[in-house]
Amino acid sequence: MPQSRFFSRRSFATGAAAAAIAPVAVATAGATRPAAAPQPAGEVRRVTMYAEELPGGQLGYGLEPGKATVPGPLLTMYEGDTMVVELHNTLDVPVSLHPHGVDYDIDNDGTAMTDSVVPPGASRTYTWQSHNQRQRADGTYIAGSAGYWHYHDHIVGTAHGTGGVRRGLYGGLIVRRRGDVLPDRTFTIVFNDMMINNRPAASPPDFTAKLGERVEVVMITHGELYHTFHLHGHRWVDNRTGLPTGPDDPSPVIDNKICGPGDSFGFQVVAGELVGSGHWMYHCHVQSHSDQGMAGMFIVTNPDGTVAGTHVADAMKPAEGTAEHEH
Amino acid sequence: MPQSRFFSRRSFATGAAAAAIAPVAVATAGATRPAAAPQPAGEVRRVTMYAEELPGGQLGYGLEPGKATVPGPLLTMYEGDTMVVELHNTLDVPVSLHPHGVDYDIDNDGTAMTDSVVPPGASRTYTWQSHNQRQRADGTYIAGSAGYWHYHDHIVGTAHGTGGVRRGLYGGLIVRRRGDVLPDRTFTIVFNDMMINNRPAASPPDFTAKLGERVEVVMITHGELYHTFHLHGHRWVDNRTGLPTGPDDPSPVIDNKICGPGDSFGFQVVAGELVGSGHWMYHCHVQSHSDQGMAGMFIVTNPDGTVAGTHVADAMKPAEGTAEHEH
Amino acid sequence: MPQSRFFSRRSFATGAAAAAIAPVAVATAGATRPAAAPQPAGEVRRVTMYAEELPGGQLGYGLEPGKATVPGPLLTMYEGDTMVVELHNTLDVPVSLHPHGVDYDIDNDGTAMTDSVVPPGASRTYTWQSHNQRQRADGTYIAGSAGYWHYHDHIVGTAHGTGGVRRGLYGGLIVRRRGDVLPDRTFTIVFNDMMINNRPAASPPDFTAKLGERVEVVMITHGELYHTFHLHGHRWVDNRTGLPTGPDDPSPVIDNKICGPGDSFGFQVVAGELVGSGHWMYHCHVQSHSDQGMAGMFIVTNPDGTVAGTHVADAMKPAEGTAEHEH
Repeated sequence: MPQSRFFSRRSFATGAAAAAIAPVAVATAGATRPAAAPQPAGEVRRVTMYAEELPGGQLGYGLEPGKATVPGPLLTMYEGDTMVVELHNTLDVPVSLHPHGVDYDIDNDGTAMTDSVVPPGASRTYTWQSHNQRQRADGTYIAGSAGYWHYHDHIVGTAHGTGGVRRGLYGGLIVRRRGDVLPDRTFTIVFNDMMINNRPAASPPDFTAKLGERVEVVMITHGELYHTFHLHGHRWVDNRTGLPTGPDDPSPVIDNKICGPGDSFGFQVVAGELVGSGHWMYHCHVQSHSDQGMAGMFIVTNPDGTVAGTHVADAMKPAEGTAEHEH
Repeated sequence: MPQSRFFSRRSFATGAAAAAIAPVAVATAGATRPAAAPQPAGEVRRVTMYAEELPGGQLGYGLEPGKATVPGPLLTMYEGDTMVVELHNTLDVPVSLHPHGVDYDIDNDGTAMTDSVVPPGASRTYTWQSHNQRQRADGTYIAGSAGYWHYHDHIVGTAHGTGGVRRGLYGGLIVRRRGDVLPDRTFTIVFNDMMINNRPAASPPDFTAKLGERVEVVMITHGELYHTFHLHGHRWVDNRTGLPTGPDDPSPVIDNKICGPGDSFGFQVVAGELVGSGHWMYHCHVQSHSDQGMAGMFIVTNPDGTVAGTHVADAMKPAEGTAEHEH
Repeated sequence: MPQSRFFSRRSFATGAAAAAIAPVAVATAGATRPAAAPQPAGEVRRVTMYAEELPGGQLGYGLEPGKATVPGPLLTMYEGDTMVVELHNTLDVPVSLHPHGVDYDIDNDGTAMTDSVVPPGASRTYTWQSHNQRQRADGTYIAGSAGYWHYHDHIVGTAHGTGGVRRGLYGGLIVRRRGDVLPDRTFTIVFNDMMINNRPAASPPDFTAKLGERVEVVMITHGELYHTFHLHGHRWVDNRTGLPTGPDDPSPVIDNKICGPGDSFGFQVVAGELVGSGHWMYHCHVQSHSDQGMAGMFIVTNPDGTVAGTHVADAMKPAEGTAEHEH
């Protein structure tokens, strides 16, 4: 069997020793034969996060004390970078961070099963690495880490973080590939059962961009229910970035996508491209979900700040007397 | 920021001015640098549709008065074409047309929120455009409009058209790319909660083709429930067309696909290829759904009109005493 | 219309005449123009399977009498191979085998509708063929049969095999493409409503591999419910094999995938690559499903047999007092 060498897990820097991480990224790269050029060492990105209570029984992550939001801060890195997150727990129950998509040793899993959660009043450092696509010694490829990922609590309420996720402990995590086109704006949209970004159904979040701006959407699903994410007047390619890689990309173009808890995807659109300014709806296409308020607006403004077309805001109100969703 | 020029939304021709559309398509094409050759202007395709009541409380769209069907007429166009649909509302409630996948300005959204629905007894013109894949000035690609899309009402019953969709106001919309292989037959299959094409469970639609015919399936989902579409004896590629683009297409080959409301996909198969004539079942693979009758036949006939194999029609009857579906 | 020649269904060898199959595969290949080289004839693989009762009301398929398992035996073949399965029914009700992905004539459908099930005490031979990707005479491509497929009963309980599938009559079926990288270990994971591989929620199956081993997962869904399959610390490409075809593969990299009954997919990971040894959880990410026990371990061992990190087994116990899943 072809056998790659692996870095020792002891070479992972965690907690107070996190300063030693950059060389580790190099060592990781050395474990396989680079596809073309040596793996860049990548940057070490450090953030401090605070898990906090918010009004109305919600919980959130924030980059400063008293600044928690739902969703939590959008974290971004490039393939090869390392993210070191120092999480402070201001709650009265243990909390954690569990990321999707990135590399971390088992002590950074953010789960009760691996004893990697943060007790009340304590802090802990989570270290996430990422890597470039490259070729293994046996000729197969390792996919790079690039993707529209996310992080969330994995311990509040249950060992799977059901209470934490329901109350708002989640956020987006983007790993970019060098050369990826950068957006002008990024919006994180989380379908969390019947809520969007934990907002009550009567006031879903709206997102505004100027005509022609490059807008990136990070779409995450949490909770119990499946959904279908639909955007009016804009479409994207169902591949890694949402943009065609070229004229031969075989991926389908879509404007509606089924998703379930833990799923995430992202895409870029040019606001109003080929369709113009307007109040463009985004919503869950499950009929009872949209009827009960899972529908917000992607508002594309003209250069003069106006918005084309008629906007009947009342028509967006959740239908009265609609039966409870059936599933 | 790279800034493409956009057509003015006022250059969209709507209603009585629809005759002026063809040049607009040219203007749209001019907004970006063509990838290889100038964008063909495309054709303007005009259809008149009638929203009508049908027996049994159903509603449908038709191309002539008194000819409404469920699903509504299959509309097809090529990338670059414009579709101008004049919708006549013969119902006693407002109705609309909301398309997926194509380009339209916000006044053609077909929603109450944009005041673009059709009052009882009135008519309205909806203009949908499509475009070729091409390169933007910044080097990124715009995906072409080609896809297996659909249209549906967005106002009957609720502001999301829940009543209209439930009762049959939907249909398929195909945008083809020049060079796409044309089918001999196209079948539209809509899983609308526990109905297929709004037929009662005891009489799902069957579809017949001759051995060797190229058959295209447009599969649309509506309503509340998720489903899994399965076809016996035939498979397709999970990409834009269902056909491999060549020997290196990385897309998976599948014969079962999860789908939720608003989703659509399509594919081509050669009837009976490598498997022969027969009564080939298609069904939702959610067990209670197939048990309750979400299963029809794709009948592939021999050149002499016979069908290979045994067909025990009684075995297709919905199971008696089956519990109600649980979700 | 381009018209390929088709093999006669009478040239299919079934039942006692199965010994004549190999030449048929050649005839099938001859129906289309090979893309590059003549289609290899492929092997004929013969297995005998027994449908049996198991303790606790479960049912299983096995390769020898008294050896039935849930899932049933993993069957593998290469594109071009033929699989001949002689199924012995030791149950007191009719049973069958219905495969996904492979080619078979209608008499091998394994359904009541085609009268191709096995009465109690009887046996029957099912013949499944597979094919290489190749080009049709009209220039389009036929996708090869390669994929992560599965087989299951289609008659126990209902005409769709709802009782058979629920009680365990299912298994994985892999069709490989020549040149596909072979794994060191393959694990079959079946989400069958709230069970994994029909194990009770309190004892989900764990899977163990050595650091650096190439592990293949075949993931199948059955029953009523949708799920989202999530694996900690490892990711895969959402394409045919789970491995990037090269640096330009546009497919997304994922670690969480929505799936519904009848769906199957597969992928390879190198155990612990870039993350090291550990108890890596796999689970359904629908919160109530994981809380109720749909979570097992992918245990990656160090060369010395130890496992890195802390493992708190109690934390994996299903949550007490968790409400019944809501959908």
